[in-house]
Amino acid sequence: MPVPIIIDCDPGHDDAIAIMLAAGDPAIDLLAITTVAGNQTVEKTTLNARRVCTVAGITGVPIAAGCAQPLVQPLLVADDVHGDSGMDGPQFAEPTVDVVPEHAVDLMYRILTEHPEPVTLVPTAPLTNIALLLTRYPDAAEHIREIVLMGGSTERGNRTPAAEFNIHVDPEAADIVFRSGVPVTMCGLNVTHQALATPEVLARLEGLGTELGRTCAQLMTYFAATYLRLWGFASPPLHDPVAVARVIDPAIVHCVDASVAVELRGQHTRGATVVDLHQYLDRPVNARVAVTLEPEMFWDRVIAAVEVLGKRT
Amino acid sequence: MPVPIIIDCDPGHDDAIAIMLAAGDPAIDLLAITTVAGNQTVEKTTLNARRVCTVAGITGVPIAAGCAQPLVQPLLVADDVHGDSGMDGPQFAEPTVDVVPEHAVDLMYRILTEHPEPVTLVPTAPLTNIALLLTRYPDAAEHIREIVLMGGSTERGNRTPAAEFNIHVDPEAADIVFRSGVPVTMCGLNVTHQALATPEVLARLEGLGTELGRTCAQLMTYFAATYLRLWGFASPPLHDPVAVARVIDPAIVHCVDASVAVELRGQHTRGATVVDLHQYLDRPVNARVAVTLEPEMFWDRVIAAVEVLGKRT
Amino acid sequence: MPVPIIIDCDPGHDDAIAIMLAAGDPAIDLLAITTVAGNQTVEKTTLNARRVCTVAGITGVPIAAGCAQPLVQPLLVADDVHGDSGMDGPQFAEPTVDVVPEHAVDLMYRILTEHPEPVTLVPTAPLTNIALLLTRYPDAAEHIREIVLMGGSTERGNRTPAAEFNIHVDPEAADIVFRSGVPVTMCGLNVTHQALATPEVLARLEGLGTELGRTCAQLMTYFAATYLRLWGFASPPLHDPVAVARVIDPAIVHCVDASVAVELRGQHTRGATVVDLHQYLDRPVNARVAVTLEPEMFWDRVIAAVEVLGKRT
Amino acid sequence: MPVPIIIDCDPGHDDAIAIMLAAGDPAIDLLAITTVAGNQTVEKTTLNARRVCTVAGITGVPIAAGCAQPLVQPLLVADDVHGDSGMDGPQFAEPTVDVVPEHAVDLMYRILTEHPEPVTLVPTAPLTNIALLLTRYPDAAEHIREIVLMGGSTERGNRTPAAEFNIHVDPEAADIVFRSGVPVTMCGLNVTHQALATPEVLARLEGLGTELGRTCAQLMTYFAATYLRLWGFASPPLHDPVAVARVIDPAIVHCVDASVAVELRGQHTRGATVVDLHQYLDRPVNARVAVTLEPEMFWDRVIAAVEVLGKRT
Repeated sequence: MPVPIIIDCDPGHDDAIAIMLAAGDPAIDLLAITTVAGNQTVEKTTLNARRVCTVAGITGVPIAAGCAQPLVQPLLVADDVHGDSGMDGPQFAEPTVDVVPEHAVDLMYRILTEHPEPVTLVPTAPLTNIALLLTRYPDAAEHIREIVLMGGSTERGNRTPAAEFNIHVDPEAADIVFRSGVPVTMCGLNVTHQALATPEVLARLEGLGTELGRTCAQLMTYFAATYLRLWGFASPPLHDPVAVARVIDPAIVHCVDASVAVELRGQHTRGATVVDLHQYLDRPVNARVAVTLEPEMFWDRVIAAVEVLGKRT
Repeated sequence: MPVPIIIDCDPGHDDAIAIMLAAGDPAIDLLAITTVAGNQTVEKTTLNARRVCTVAGITGVPIAAGCAQPLVQPLLVADDVHGDSGMDGPQFAEPTVDVVPEHAVDLMYRILTEHPEPVTLVPTAPLTNIALLLTRYPDAAEHIREIVLMGGSTERGNRTPAAEFNIHVDPEAADIVFRSGVPVTMCGLNVTHQALATPEVLARLEGLGTELGRTCAQLMTYFAATYLRLWGFASPPLHDPVAVARVIDPAIVHCVDASVAVELRGQHTRGATVVDLHQYLDRPVNARVAVTLEPEMFWDRVIAAVEVLGKRT
Repeated sequence: MPVPIIIDCDPGHDDAIAIMLAAGDPAIDLLAITTVAGNQTVEKTTLNARRVCTVAGITGVPIAAGCAQPLVQPLLVADDVHGDSGMDGPQFAEPTVDVVPEHAVDLMYRILTEHPEPVTLVPTAPLTNIALLLTRYPDAAEHIREIVLMGGSTERGNRTPAAEFNIHVDPEAADIVFRSGVPVTMCGLNVTHQALATPEVLARLEGLGTELGRTCAQLMTYFAATYLRLWGFASPPLHDPVAVARVIDPAIVHCVDASVAVELRGQHTRGATVVDLHQYLDRPVNARVAVTLEPEMFWDRVIAAVEVLGKRT
Repeated sequence: MPVPIIIDCDPGHDDAIAIMLAAGDPAIDLLAITTVAGNQTVEKTTLNARRVCTVAGITGVPIAAGCAQPLVQPLLVADDVHGDSGMDGPQFAEPTVDVVPEHAVDLMYRILTEHPEPVTLVPTAPLTNIALLLTRYPDAAEHIREIVLMGGSTERGNRTPAAEFNIHVDPEAADIVFRSGVPVTMCGLNVTHQALATPEVLARLEGLGTELGRTCAQLMTYFAATYLRLWGFASPPLHDPVAVARVIDPAIVHCVDASVAVELRGQHTRGATVVDLHQYLDRPVNARVAVTLEPEMFWDRVIAAVEVLGKRT
């Protein structure tokens, strides 16, 4: 039986692929897409979510816009990575899929309480919406099966030497989530950097012969240029779909149990996820931390999902 | 014309008097009472708000419960100051006033957007509800005339040497409020310590000859014992009504403009309100800061309000 | 028998008077004057110490220069308070008293170990030299009778809303001193603001009819202008002599025992001395904290010392 | 011409090998060995330095003891890694080499100012002595050719998830060194984890057929057990000799220029070295950061040095 999930995202090139993976994979029942400020303003990330659903023929999945600002600090966007639109590269037609007139957090709560079984949340963005959900609706926690998020790192960051972007944008929200008591699985840079969109991957996407395959290849081509320029990557890592893949099949993304703390106060390290892999500190385990990806299994699922959706449109 | 206000509180002995002042003074139009965790759990503070309305005959003012936890850190209650019930001292009958089935923040937002003119918020508790309101409903800001809060200090704290209780319980919420751009007036310990419930004040309350007058005197008698024991005060300061008094008549509470920052990171100073009275730092003014109270005007209004309500019941 | 002391200072208008009080009062045996960067660079504060000794006829007291920089952070001087020379106002002749060719910290250690009885250190400047002494010569501690310092505050600061200048300039050094285990008496702004150089005080100094009396009056007149301009004081507080007065006669400066912590990490409060006057926190007492000054006794001793020195020259 | 260096160390198994490498390699002129608290108390690390010199026949190199405590925080030793003696494993005879009666910092300064050319400092311990040297003798900086240190990490730590031991023990000292303006080369865990004492290495040491070779093998065998137990390493990394190897031949240890900041304030990250490898931040370069080790060249030099010394004894 497919796992019911809500994706909370800020598309974003890799968010776009994460949405398609969730919508196209038979192991997932995508209940909703919620958006938040992060890679770009929430206006832009919401427009991008609508664009993705339009181009991928994803209909019947409600899209709701959420928070425009991190909880405590001002918004920092990643226009250097994702461009001015937040999803630069392909040309998108006017979206035909609209948002629902409900705040992301209210939609999440309604689905969580109405759905017959617990729902998995898959945040691939700053955790502002999730933190707000847990704050506004404390009883939401008992309806969440798990939070499987893309964010953080067991090692270096990508926004500062110590902090990964999603956590860096809203460290307090991340802290709320990691300390919430809800089961959390963290897919950080250490594992998403194993999900490299190599030329072979691009060739497979283009080889699908669909419009959607070409759009995906264009998204990754733009992303590849960004990663080459900013960090010298030969092929770009596709962060966000890793969290979806973990939900699809835990065998794709191997995890260990660990204590994770979010650094809120450092002068040079704010937003770092401090992962106690070696039990240096006497702190209780509060997360599963992804450490290894099976790249072939991963790409097979991604490309299969794009293929399924591409044929449908 | 009376000023429309919502009191956001955690009764609390002094919150109780603040509610009565707001309900009994002709200069105020009390639109709602919302509650939050602080002096005690939100269950207890909500029960206490109902008790106050019952004993003071305040009907027709909706009461709504809000957040049970600070935004980021665990809850700390002030049972050493307010007792196990949060309002120890008098015996209260079963309350006959009930809460409305709406979250405090939703009620606030509905009133703010439905009321024909901007509404003043008067928080006399940790600022969790107010921060959540501004986060969940960013457009609420434009309907708020002013936030006149009891909290903080230009000098020493009362929970730690540096931090006042309301700010100390939820520093991130306070930071959100002070940086929100909404006009904020801060009535801190430096001014509330000028509102001392002296034996003369108690005598005047008892001299009203009403049940309510006696209840108020009992509340202050309990509070007096607390303040004598913990801090050596001869007479206890009645913090929360000072914020209401400022709204009733700005001439009762004199303010200066200043930059106020909330310390979020200090090892010994977290929750301090750093008030730049002498422009040491090059920071923009973001608050009016109360510095002087006119005690006679203050107590006259408080006692008059208790008298009005006491005769009604 | 006079108390043997070493003054560690950064003259500084009020340091100048502190030196004269120590040199002119029969209750003190001034063993040395050491200098440090603070109100101005150590070159300027050392020159000023020589000027003070020259104008006041203080000979036979070794002067040694110490640290040019705080331990960890860059130097901030107080030229807005003390002028470009660090002691603006009077005209000083070329000093005839020279420094000894020994680092302040080495001189202190030598005196401490050679003097037949424990010696009191009286720092009226950032605590860099004292911290370096304790770090380089850990056994110095057992030869120190007490450290009676001017610095910190139980309330607001004077360099930032939270921090007093001497602690603000070198918070790590202050932290080392307060945690050293050596008996520490802190004379902070809360008590030095009771040592106001009123017009009556100035008149008494001028009325001494000596050159030195006039110089002291000029120093205070300059200081008065500073304090009026920056903080609106009608008469300026003479901070540093308060610490010397405490050594001369504990009855002049009343103290209480308390825990004092130096805030090293705050974003808005770094350098604050957090004084737990009401035992909010469960921390051991590590300091005597001055709370009340007897102004008449204080000024009588100051003026008597200036008189004694002025007649000698 | 050999490079004149002073090793500042806290032996320590790997410090012992570092001393031998420096003493036995023809590219180095070892001027002095100074000790500091770190792996164990300064009494124990000083005793261990004498033991190393005794067993390795290193005579004529002055040994001086330095600081017993970090600058600001209490001492944390690494007895879990290095045992109660700080150098557990081999049996050492009573040392025949003594310390000089001079503080480490004074000895360093004297050598720095007396030596005809600038001297390289090689700290393989917490940086307390070096920071004290720069604080007490600011002009020492101009006589230092370079500081090539073992400490920090571009990635994870080994004492906390974020901090390496040497920096973690005295973060303020490290901050002073990295901001001193003296050229600094940092050999962190990221590169020292490439210097693994494999069974082949142990076999080569034992194969030397000398007493010293056997002692070195015993040291590494003890260290291997520690690293297996605490961190699951198959072979232990030999941190400290890497810094010496970098001085011997820069081709053994490849570096990049980067900005390095020491985190002093984090709640979970204090003592982290934040290395801006990708210029995320707009900060000036202040260090050379070692990134790659040539293991064969490294071990050849280490074993050759042990061989040379072993034959001499």
